[in-house]
Amino acid sequence: MSLHKEVSLNLNVRGLGQSATIAINERSKQLQLEGKTVYRLGLGQSPFPVPTPVVEALKLHAHEKDYLPTKGLPLLRQAVAEFHRQKDGLEVGPDNVLIGPGSKELMFLLQLVYYGELIVPTPCWVSYVPQATIVGRKVSLIHTSSEDKWRITAERLEEHCVGEEDDFRPRILVLNYPGNPEGRSYCAEELEDLARVARKYHVILLSDEIYGQLHHQGTHVSVARYYPEGTIISSGISKWCGAGGWRLGTFTFPSELDWLLNAMAAVASETFTSVCAPVQHAAVYAFKGGIAIERYLWHTRRILSALGNQCADMLASAGVMVHSPVGGFYLFPEFAFFAERLAARGIKDSKSLCRRLLDETGVAILPGADFDRPPLELTARIAYVDFDGAKALSASETIPLDQALPEEFTRLWCRNVLEAIRIMVDWLNT
Amino acid sequence: MSLHKEVSLNLNVRGLGQSATIAINERSKQLQLEGKTVYRLGLGQSPFPVPTPVVEALKLHAHEKDYLPTKGLPLLRQAVAEFHRQKDGLEVGPDNVLIGPGSKELMFLLQLVYYGELIVPTPCWVSYVPQATIVGRKVSLIHTSSEDKWRITAERLEEHCVGEEDDFRPRILVLNYPGNPEGRSYCAEELEDLARVARKYHVILLSDEIYGQLHHQGTHVSVARYYPEGTIISSGISKWCGAGGWRLGTFTFPSELDWLLNAMAAVASETFTSVCAPVQHAAVYAFKGGIAIERYLWHTRRILSALGNQCADMLASAGVMVHSPVGGFYLFPEFAFFAERLAARGIKDSKSLCRRLLDETGVAILPGADFDRPPLELTARIAYVDFDGAKALSASETIPLDQALPEEFTRLWCRNVLEAIRIMVDWLNT
Repeated sequence: MSLHKEVSLNLNVRGLGQSATIAINERSKQLQLEGKTVYRLGLGQSPFPVPTPVVEALKLHAHEKDYLPTKGLPLLRQAVAEFHRQKDGLEVGPDNVLIGPGSKELMFLLQLVYYGELIVPTPCWVSYVPQATIVGRKVSLIHTSSEDKWRITAERLEEHCVGEEDDFRPRILVLNYPGNPEGRSYCAEELEDLARVARKYHVILLSDEIYGQLHHQGTHVSVARYYPEGTIISSGISKWCGAGGWRLGTFTFPSELDWLLNAMAAVASETFTSVCAPVQHAAVYAFKGGIAIERYLWHTRRILSALGNQCADMLASAGVMVHSPVGGFYLFPEFAFFAERLAARGIKDSKSLCRRLLDETGVAILPGADFDRPPLELTARIAYVDFDGAKALSASETIPLDQALPEEFTRLWCRNVLEAIRIMVDWLNT
Repeated sequence: MSLHKEVSLNLNVRGLGQSATIAINERSKQLQLEGKTVYRLGLGQSPFPVPTPVVEALKLHAHEKDYLPTKGLPLLRQAVAEFHRQKDGLEVGPDNVLIGPGSKELMFLLQLVYYGELIVPTPCWVSYVPQATIVGRKVSLIHTSSEDKWRITAERLEEHCVGEEDDFRPRILVLNYPGNPEGRSYCAEELEDLARVARKYHVILLSDEIYGQLHHQGTHVSVARYYPEGTIISSGISKWCGAGGWRLGTFTFPSELDWLLNAMAAVASETFTSVCAPVQHAAVYAFKGGIAIERYLWHTRRILSALGNQCADMLASAGVMVHSPVGGFYLFPEFAFFAERLAARGIKDSKSLCRRLLDETGVAILPGADFDRPPLELTARIAYVDFDGAKALSASETIPLDQALPEEFTRLWCRNVLEAIRIMVDWLNT
């Protein structure tokens, strides 16, 4: 029989593989099952446990079984608004907040309901562009450079908008900071400049601040301060709260963009309906914060900063171009210095670089091409998260927060990551 | 400033309201907040608590924070496959199963990835058609009739397929049984006949069996028995397991339709990523079943059957045309007998019927028009669920399962529902 496979797949979906980050995770697990040692620097998952009060809250609300309102549990929308009022100085209330099963799903809904162009500075997170492809939207990539520390400048944005010669073009610009895959952020002045250009061209900003609370110095600033009327802030509990597998993300809109929030909620009511009730109740505790959550954040930041900088130093000493991280848990090294030697071994692009590295050493990292960089550019993303976050966290808790972590801390608690970097350096020098 | 609201909404989404069932729920809550007594027969939510072993499992797994595989937790996929092997006699394994945040989301993904026509017999669940609209697919409604007990016959399906004169048209037919909104099902012979026609025209069946375990006699039969190679079974824990707010649905595919499963998983990996980890772990216990779950199911079936039949009898005695229910918790009455009297009060369609009923009596039911019936047809859906399911369940547990529930049971434990029906009958006779 034939059930029409040949003709009946949506062309926008045809040939679409799994999300790159998810694929590397599943491939690494497979290699491990085959008995190989794998250093899992591929998937960007927080190594830390969900803070205890939040886990306890999930247990407390385990019996909640009613469908919650599509836009989210009112208490949670309140807590998220209050979070952004306090942390970002925004004038928002519960009505400005939309809760979804992960911020990734909310970004997809945004692209589905918005009829306009998506501007994405690269290197960029792996899912923005495939989402646009699925819904058939035009994407404009703006390639940033290592010299600009992989950040888009106001000038580049202005050039892009001017160049299109279309004053009425509806556009969304994605800004992701602290950034995946490069671990960098913007200073207040840069954000102000970007905000000025966005306002001038009526560009909506999708400000992906999922790593905001993981700014290593705790000094994250949102672009919404400078462009409140045109900025949507994306956040959630996956990264700073360690609860990626729980699937809860948040969008916070200015009242001027109510029409987008409402259109997204209408589609949400026909798709995911609402987010898991017990998880929403638990997330209230995460966004309300308090001393236990703040302490957790400061310890995780201190560990990530020490480890990220140490990895960056090791790579830099070996001749790899890399910027030291300011937030999150990623590095985005460039291996141009090794280009000739790698070429001699048949490695001429980032995909073969990462495939060979994984096969020959067990170190899993993701190629720059997955982050929409030119395929021949020898870049990659390292997620320095392959360590037991629970153990590292409790070890850190024995050291007062006003002290730096001692030299041996990462050697003791993040051994796998450092070993993976050493192995990578050796492999490059082979 | 203008952020281009006027031009930049997807036309398929523009004007899309909230899902009808969700809207009535939120409106009823609002009326209650205003101090009015509302009989909530609108939203179709199970009145029963989630079975205790499943809630305990959620607590036990509350700390699980890792992203699970996009297709679902292997243990859960195994349990779902085993469930369908045992209950439906299908030859499926874990690889045939896809887990999503609600079966509604999975249906949306199916429509998004499949490039073909959707055939929907009406009255039909409120979201099939809006989903098709959002992704821009063609929908063919086939209006069934009360004489056919609101069921599509093999002849009607054949007429439809022949009439299109297009041998290669890719099509999905939705079958929902026990059905929302009419509480009816198909017998084995009817399913065999439908399967024969579906096979002849290569129609894929989306067999929405979310109420399968709520067949009042426990004798649900899946069409997949007769058309295994072309049937996707949709199920989940929202209805028979009372966990609507947890958001977990399942699709089970024949191996022949692997290409659809894989395309859906690819889009899933770019959207919802995976379903909430603690909920997936808990759902394993639901699908594995066992004596506690079976006992729970038999008690809930006995209560729903007694109550549904009593409501149908009350309505029938008053001159309302209604079929007695065989599963789930809905009735789909037709008020043609009252047409003249209603018209004299200015009520000429199902929407005004339900609006006036709610405003004048506090009884919330949904108009037939929301289930894609012709607007002037005086039909409506009654969800007979406005009672405390926990209390009713524990009362039922004191009465041996081989006995019928005594007369006074529903009077004692489902008072609100019976009162709502009485009020409705009085209002019709005003």
